[in-house]
Amino acid sequence: MMMDDDVEEALAPYQDKPRTFPIMRSKSKTPWILRVLFGLNRRVYYLLSVLVLGALFYIGVNTSPIIVFVFGLCSLSLIFALYLATWVLAKDEGPPEMSQISDAIRDGAEGFFRTQYGTISKMAILLAFVILGIYMFRNTTSQQQSSGLERSSLAFITVISFLLGALCSGIAGYVGMWVSVRANVRVSSAARRSAREALQVATRAGGFSAIIVVGMAVMGVAVLYATFYVYLGVDQANSMKVTELPLLLVGYGFGASFVALFAQLGGGIYTKAADVGADLVGKVEQGIPEDDPRNPAVIADLVGDNVGDCAARGADLFESIAAEVISAMILGGSMAKRCKIEDPSGFILFPLVIHSFDLVVSACGILSIRSTRDPSVKSPVEDPMAILQKGYSITIFLALIAFFGSTRWLLYTDQAPAAWLHFALCGLVGIITAYVFVWISQYYTDYKYEPVRTLALSCSTGHGTNIIAGVSLGLESTALPVITISVSIISAYWLGRTSGLVESDGTPTGGLFGTAVATMGMLCTAGYVLTMDMFGPIADNAGGIVEMSQQPDSVREITDLLDAVGNTTKATTKGFAIGSAALASFLLFSAYMDEVSSFAHQPFNQVDIAIPEVFVGGLLGSMLIYLFSAWACAAVGRTAQEVVNEVRRQFIDRPGIMTYQEKPDYGRCVAIVASASLREMIKPGALAVISPIVTGIVFKILGHYTDQPLLGAKVVASMLMFATVSGILMALFLNTSGGAWDNAKKYIESGALGGKGSEAHKAAVTGDTVGDPFKDTAGPSLHVLIKMLATITLVMAPMFL
Amino acid sequence: MMMDDDVEEALAPYQDKPRTFPIMRSKSKTPWILRVLFGLNRRVYYLLSVLVLGALFYIGVNTSPIIVFVFGLCSLSLIFALYLATWVLAKDEGPPEMSQISDAIRDGAEGFFRTQYGTISKMAILLAFVILGIYMFRNTTSQQQSSGLERSSLAFITVISFLLGALCSGIAGYVGMWVSVRANVRVSSAARRSAREALQVATRAGGFSAIIVVGMAVMGVAVLYATFYVYLGVDQANSMKVTELPLLLVGYGFGASFVALFAQLGGGIYTKAADVGADLVGKVEQGIPEDDPRNPAVIADLVGDNVGDCAARGADLFESIAAEVISAMILGGSMAKRCKIEDPSGFILFPLVIHSFDLVVSACGILSIRSTRDPSVKSPVEDPMAILQKGYSITIFLALIAFFGSTRWLLYTDQAPAAWLHFALCGLVGIITAYVFVWISQYYTDYKYEPVRTLALSCSTGHGTNIIAGVSLGLESTALPVITISVSIISAYWLGRTSGLVESDGTPTGGLFGTAVATMGMLCTAGYVLTMDMFGPIADNAGGIVEMSQQPDSVREITDLLDAVGNTTKATTKGFAIGSAALASFLLFSAYMDEVSSFAHQPFNQVDIAIPEVFVGGLLGSMLIYLFSAWACAAVGRTAQEVVNEVRRQFIDRPGIMTYQEKPDYGRCVAIVASASLREMIKPGALAVISPIVTGIVFKILGHYTDQPLLGAKVVASMLMFATVSGILMALFLNTSGGAWDNAKKYIESGALGGKGSEAHKAAVTGDTVGDPFKDTAGPSLHVLIKMLATITLVMAPMFL
Repeated sequence: MMMDDDVEEALAPYQDKPRTFPIMRSKSKTPWILRVLFGLNRRVYYLLSVLVLGALFYIGVNTSPIIVFVFGLCSLSLIFALYLATWVLAKDEGPPEMSQISDAIRDGAEGFFRTQYGTISKMAILLAFVILGIYMFRNTTSQQQSSGLERSSLAFITVISFLLGALCSGIAGYVGMWVSVRANVRVSSAARRSAREALQVATRAGGFSAIIVVGMAVMGVAVLYATFYVYLGVDQANSMKVTELPLLLVGYGFGASFVALFAQLGGGIYTKAADVGADLVGKVEQGIPEDDPRNPAVIADLVGDNVGDCAARGADLFESIAAEVISAMILGGSMAKRCKIEDPSGFILFPLVIHSFDLVVSACGILSIRSTRDPSVKSPVEDPMAILQKGYSITIFLALIAFFGSTRWLLYTDQAPAAWLHFALCGLVGIITAYVFVWISQYYTDYKYEPVRTLALSCSTGHGTNIIAGVSLGLESTALPVITISVSIISAYWLGRTSGLVESDGTPTGGLFGTAVATMGMLCTAGYVLTMDMFGPIADNAGGIVEMSQQPDSVREITDLLDAVGNTTKATTKGFAIGSAALASFLLFSAYMDEVSSFAHQPFNQVDIAIPEVFVGGLLGSMLIYLFSAWACAAVGRTAQEVVNEVRRQFIDRPGIMTYQEKPDYGRCVAIVASASLREMIKPGALAVISPIVTGIVFKILGHYTDQPLLGAKVVASMLMFATVSGILMALFLNTSGGAWDNAKKYIESGALGGKGSEAHKAAVTGDTVGDPFKDTAGPSLHVLIKMLATITLVMAPMFL
Repeated sequence: MMMDDDVEEALAPYQDKPRTFPIMRSKSKTPWILRVLFGLNRRVYYLLSVLVLGALFYIGVNTSPIIVFVFGLCSLSLIFALYLATWVLAKDEGPPEMSQISDAIRDGAEGFFRTQYGTISKMAILLAFVILGIYMFRNTTSQQQSSGLERSSLAFITVISFLLGALCSGIAGYVGMWVSVRANVRVSSAARRSAREALQVATRAGGFSAIIVVGMAVMGVAVLYATFYVYLGVDQANSMKVTELPLLLVGYGFGASFVALFAQLGGGIYTKAADVGADLVGKVEQGIPEDDPRNPAVIADLVGDNVGDCAARGADLFESIAAEVISAMILGGSMAKRCKIEDPSGFILFPLVIHSFDLVVSACGILSIRSTRDPSVKSPVEDPMAILQKGYSITIFLALIAFFGSTRWLLYTDQAPAAWLHFALCGLVGIITAYVFVWISQYYTDYKYEPVRTLALSCSTGHGTNIIAGVSLGLESTALPVITISVSIISAYWLGRTSGLVESDGTPTGGLFGTAVATMGMLCTAGYVLTMDMFGPIADNAGGIVEMSQQPDSVREITDLLDAVGNTTKATTKGFAIGSAALASFLLFSAYMDEVSSFAHQPFNQVDIAIPEVFVGGLLGSMLIYLFSAWACAAVGRTAQEVVNEVRRQFIDRPGIMTYQEKPDYGRCVAIVASASLREMIKPGALAVISPIVTGIVFKILGHYTDQPLLGAKVVASMLMFATVSGILMALFLNTSGGAWDNAKKYIESGALGGKGSEAHKAAVTGDTVGDPFKDTAGPSLHVLIKMLATITLVMAPMFL
């Protein structure tokens, strides 16, 4: 009891705030727009929803029945998401000592989110003006000219898409964080009752944001598509062809990836700087456990999980799906055009349908994780991983059925009766690839297997050998994924090429679309995978709250179990994310070539690295990845040093902290990390946005003077490809080595090689510290970077000509 | 005195061996061929030399006066090298306690060298049979067919070139080690008298092997060229054109890089496993200083410097020069052919002349480092770096004059009167690039500058932050070199392209040759740079001998000073090596495209990464670099763990070691490291050799079934390019971060941030340990790997068609 009192005293600054939901309502910092929105009567919302839905279905009906279908499934899924949210929020918040901590976390997370997204939105608006300027002076394609599409309307279409993409990406991030800061304490509370219930709360909370993220990505693209379709009068005489329409959507993808990049960078720096800083002083120097309330950086660390993992991963997956859907639509459209397919809308809208089904099958997967019927009977603790895996198997099985159905429905054409089957097999290739990726990441990061055990063994000879072994492990772990991705690109390409779809001169042409379908196959369970991913940080936070509120050991055991599973799911979904990024970038690259061809009024289908400038572009692209990773890691290192100094200072200034006599100043650590990560995210982010543009323009000018047409576009293409390849490898290296160090430490903590407190454990903690910025800052930022490079080159292509 | 006695006792097993030179003569393990060679009368050698020289000049006269000139300069340089060797060997070996240690090092080094090169030569012979088999079934080029060159003679020519390249590379490595194991003790002894004399002995010893290495590379190519010229009756009616001749030399380059790869891998693993193992137990656990005679792994560590740095770097630079000369000759030949230049031999033989001048100017640079006239007057200690830099400036200045003279002499043609000037400027670009590279590596690895100081500061917050900061520093350090190399490739290409040399249809064609000339510019001071590089390990060894033989502090101060300078020169010459590797690979890539065109009887001048298979080739190529680095680092880690366990065991079994009561078993550590590094070098080496061959064949078959001609060749080309780019970046990262960690530790040891023994120092030692395999095993092996990939694809090209 004495301890609880101390915790309460320690948390005194947060006690005067009301703990009713939602906490933002009572706070002066809430922006006016949210105040207005929250102030409205519920009936106004019902009315508005009906009006919006009506308008959507109206334009949907005027576009294509497929769009109506997509709108229908998405609307149902959003209702399902609302059900999940209500269910989670109805759970109790546990005793006051828990909800106080949770309030502190929520305040920190929402405060950082507001400031961060304030900065990002300013940059986005600035960039919107730049894009507007570029498009006002760009050339339109011959197609667009003939359809009477003017420069100014093209410019506004692109800018509006960009801003909508940015906004939706922001909302996706917000939703991810919103639910996690509310679910964490409910999971802690549920853990007091049963492991199964805690698991269910965590997955349903994760499921809520996963459904919102995927649904919004699909809905956003569908709405834009339908609006442009109706507004531009597509497919009428003298107007734009429907096969050209997807090219207008690229702005949406770029907006999404722009926001995701900064969200991931800022959040990633925040979470890992706080984590490393807290660990270095708390665990290593003072010898207190993780998430101990005496550590002044502990709240910052818990806030970090929410802004780094939840918000950023939401934005990341949102952007993945948006980019992949748009590039597949572009490729589907251009293939349908080349093959002169009568009704191309099936090929164009196929990705939207696949992801609508994704929502449904993921919902089934989420619902399959149930509490035992009678909550009063404590069920024996099962392996949560097995339960999650079972849900994943169900989801994959249903997705496979939906995939075959959709291909038969949309990709059947009389010109090539077997084509749909070929594409269905491409989807299967994608699903298998996803599965293999998940398995490989598990093999290299789970301590059930050889690699992590060998790594743990290397800790027994010291810090240095642990780092060497971890780096080698990470570098080695790139081999199998690369071979997998190679096999799947080539086999999907050939399945597509032999589909029977041919151009008018008989050239088989379905290859790229085959890779696109494989990418969709890979991403067609994105909803469930994101659920598993979101589960990780929520469980981690719940564990932190349990630790800080000094709950009995039995509760901690449950949250520790969930936390360990969360670590594995986080690591495996990273494998999934990088695999899909690799495939998506290859698509976006092809879309870029298509776009350049259509702007330059000449074929552009080769990027020849035997030309010195093009080779140099590749060198620069690969270098960009190294420099970006360097700056991302260095940002964490620098910020962590600030935290270390602050925490050391607090322990010296307030010697009573260690004996629970004085309370640490949590707020100062939160403020230091927040301002530092905002400052530090700018440099790598700006590098990523500016360098392809500068390269393109410099080589455009060089090409002009040395009489090499399209040089700028070629160099940027090669930059993009080399950056993609290097980015995939670097991200795999960073993610895997980081995950392996983390789990090697966990393995030793489980009692192996001397257990906690041994010399081997100290070496393992060093490895974990190094791995933190690798796996949670630089690595995931690279996923986003790869796709952002692809979308920025797509949007900026006219500048390089 | 008591200490000296103990050392003598400790070294007892080596005392019964005679310490006269050369020690091998008295040993039973000496191979019979060396026994025969050593047993011959000196007059027999004189006679043989005269005969060989006569034969050489006879075929030289029948080939071209330029060849005679090259033979002349090379012969003079070899005589100069003999003078240097005699001068160094005439120096005294110091007191017996020194020469005993030196004998132990020499035995270890020569023992390992014999075993290692035994293994390598077996592999080389096996590979020679494989090549023979391939060439017996390959197609000959139309040119070769018309000149009546038969398959079998082509096969034998390639195999003989390969074996000669391998042999010369082996000799280059042996010479490097031979002189360093003899010079180390003479430097130690000279350090007792004056710093200046020690510096002079070390540089002259380094200079000896540098001249031999460069001279042999030039001589080998020249002899092969002249022999083939005479044997094949080139340029006579119905026979081969001289412009085709350089293509026959590729086997030489491959042989050289094959041996260099394994030499570097084996030596690199040896030296760093011993170093890391010795440090981890000695410095970190037992707290005894570096090179302390009580450390059982200390002799292994000192042996490692010789086999890792001296022998391997000799083979590495030999291979660089050979590969660069051959590729430049191929490009010069094909350009001369396209431009229909009347006498193409100037363009073809230009690289040989440049490197002959390299020998002369480097000799001047080496001679510029003098002892003060009167050795009895102790000169005040000057900064050795300044003396070396002065020598470098002299060398560069002379090289520049020689370069302009050679271009005017050989590259003047009436077709394009200004061409020679353009190419001279390309050479200037290369020289400037080399200079900038050296400066950048110095900036990032010297503790005079910001980066290493910041790195040292990060040690104060622990092991983890030091590693994060070092990794970031290494990743960041890739940016400037890449920009430099980009600028120099593009500018040299354009200088060449605008040289006025045009094909018959008016297309400017000198671009690639321009890059080739820039590469020569970069390497045209290779002799001096290699001297500075060899200086490092010799000084390091000398320091070790001084420490082990317990010399007074004043002597140690001198060797410490030289050792610190050696660290800097080693780091900077790595920058130089990777820069030249980058340029050379671009040339070899072009040579490969030329070769494929001529074998496939169709133009092959594009590598289009928009083709999925070609993109996959790139992915695999980049992955190869990661996997190779992983295995190289892991090998060091594993071997170091074996050493750690052995040293720990000795300290436990023989507690008297720490009090000088018992002698450590040095031999066991030497044996463990030697056998482990031989075992460990096979896996990464085999990966590098086998994977391009397998990829080429797999995609050749795939291309056959999917009706894509030349697919194998294209995929291998893309693999090569991506591997080159990734390899350059990875090597820069590994070398720089390793060097920076090393010097951050030295900075702290110099008294900053708490100095030796502080917590910051412990963190710095961890960084240094991690950096060791980075900078001395994986990094330098990558230099060789990049070029080996290029030469293997050149030699194996016919298999991929």
